[in-house]
Amino acid sequence: MTKTIHSIGEDALVASLARGYSRPNARLIKGMGDDASVTIQAAGRALLATTDVLIEGIHFIKAHTTPYLLGRKALGVSLSDIAAMGGRPLFHLVSIAMPPETPKAFVNGLYKGMDAAGQDYGSCLAGGNTARLPGRVMVSTTAFGEAAAGRVIYRNGARPGDVIYVTGLLGQSALGMEALKTSGAAAIRGRFKEAVKRHLDPAPRIAAGATLASGGLATAMMDLSDGLGIDLRRMCEASGVTAEVELEKIPVSAALRRYARDNRVSASVFAASGGEDYELLFTSPPGRAKAVATAAKRAKITITPIGRVTGKGGKGRPGVVFVNADGRAVRLKKAGFQHF
Amino acid sequence: MTKTIHSIGEDALVASLARGYSRPNARLIKGMGDDASVTIQAAGRALLATTDVLIEGIHFIKAHTTPYLLGRKALGVSLSDIAAMGGRPLFHLVSIAMPPETPKAFVNGLYKGMDAAGQDYGSCLAGGNTARLPGRVMVSTTAFGEAAAGRVIYRNGARPGDVIYVTGLLGQSALGMEALKTSGAAAIRGRFKEAVKRHLDPAPRIAAGATLASGGLATAMMDLSDGLGIDLRRMCEASGVTAEVELEKIPVSAALRRYARDNRVSASVFAASGGEDYELLFTSPPGRAKAVATAAKRAKITITPIGRVTGKGGKGRPGVVFVNADGRAVRLKKAGFQHF
Repeated sequence: MTKTIHSIGEDALVASLARGYSRPNARLIKGMGDDASVTIQAAGRALLATTDVLIEGIHFIKAHTTPYLLGRKALGVSLSDIAAMGGRPLFHLVSIAMPPETPKAFVNGLYKGMDAAGQDYGSCLAGGNTARLPGRVMVSTTAFGEAAAGRVIYRNGARPGDVIYVTGLLGQSALGMEALKTSGAAAIRGRFKEAVKRHLDPAPRIAAGATLASGGLATAMMDLSDGLGIDLRRMCEASGVTAEVELEKIPVSAALRRYARDNRVSASVFAASGGEDYELLFTSPPGRAKAVATAAKRAKITITPIGRVTGKGGKGRPGVVFVNADGRAVRLKKAGFQHF
Repeated sequence: MTKTIHSIGEDALVASLARGYSRPNARLIKGMGDDASVTIQAAGRALLATTDVLIEGIHFIKAHTTPYLLGRKALGVSLSDIAAMGGRPLFHLVSIAMPPETPKAFVNGLYKGMDAAGQDYGSCLAGGNTARLPGRVMVSTTAFGEAAAGRVIYRNGARPGDVIYVTGLLGQSALGMEALKTSGAAAIRGRFKEAVKRHLDPAPRIAAGATLASGGLATAMMDLSDGLGIDLRRMCEASGVTAEVELEKIPVSAALRRYARDNRVSASVFAASGGEDYELLFTSPPGRAKAVATAAKRAKITITPIGRVTGKGGKGRPGVVFVNADGRAVRLKKAGFQHF
């Protein structure tokens, strides 16, 4: 008989998770098993905290992923927020709500994936919560990180003249989702498998974010969760500036170029409109371009300049403009993912 | 036309929440509106963190409460975990998932309630997340608190000979829920209105927890979320001890005595079995009884001794025994709330 969450009961479930995924850590005094987790604060350092939720049917489809990958993504998207502030991960809390008939193996896989991502990026499980939810699995992750108090990077620091950069390739996650919609789980091993991997298991850019922040290189930074179109607009609004992006400069994969050609769409527009890339978007003065390139090398990631901050924002100002190779403004039809 | 979350959109919703509920705070550098909240750490102090989720249809019924009270409860249950460790609240993050057709007024009420509870207990909103969830409202709260590093109280410190205490009255929340089941929202103004209030708006015992912890008075502490029967067993298992509770000593309200008489049940057994009281359960050496009474006065709360830690636990040992007035062991039929 398949062991379910219902057949095991809450206490035994929590105890088995505490046994399997507690890791010794110098800053963690008490993880799972008490009313709250207990960690030691570090004098003069900023504590970063962020929370995200993945809901079955909204943020993921069970048939298109595995419990292990879902666990990696649940933690990964929260750690991406820590990276976006220039922080290093510390700990995470996890709330999982699920139907009583959920197999124990599903929960094990989920926690195994979170644990593996935690090890990859330096975060350890500090506690959490389980609840019953008929019909859906929901995973809520709260991640903690830290940075030197004066080195945290916000969205609101972009200044006219700054260069706009992104890490990695854009549109990969959206391409992966398209492939999953078309081919189902078979896409995991199909021709767009790299893109599918990015969609199911995004890689938070911890090293890049921390290097850019500690070097004082980024004036504003955020992660790309809802698509460049939406997210850059948010950064510009927070900073009170306008921006221009050269569509042709947006870094895209060969696979996306192929897909775009076959489907007669613009790879750049597709990339600028797709959500969930979890790459970093940041601005930096033009004089720091060499230092940015060095930081990219150190963090082992490509960093691409895609545009610049054109001026101060305000009523009636253009906001964010995307221009094509001959300088004409292009309107993004679907500017990323809005939740409601 | 009623404004809904869908008609407003995510960014405007978050912006309006950030405007309405951001409070200046010496430890909070950046609240809502960036990728993560930023707070300042305090040297040598323990950081406490805990997460809870309230799901419509499981943890609450919309018709039996108001958005304001739901907000108070969502934060209150998390702050109760901070109290149970002996901590003082600092900040909280909130994830809310809801149907797109949710009225904006509902969200406003929820945040107003959380804000009011935050002010009552010293916690301020530092950030959060919104997501779409068809058919249900779900509120996930992560609360942060702190305590002197050596003064945190865990579940595992109870020692043979210790006296077992609880704060306040037990069974109030369960009585309130019974009244709501019987009379619906009319119960809010009915004969059990005090009990209904406890159910809908539990009061985390911050002052009591912090006073007991800073005075070194409690050897083990936790909050009563799932009922004394279940929670004391958890404390005994964590501490490796056995315990005896005198049913007659369990503090109950006059309203519960009346209800118990009318329904021919034992008020004490009802109180020991009911969940969600969010009172504190703690142990303390008999020699500190006077100091505990003084602490109770300072925290303006009743604290009642209900039993004692009888010995070391182990295989085949009795665990937790409830005895009635003539010393006979009584078996609790329904020992509180289990989530699966």
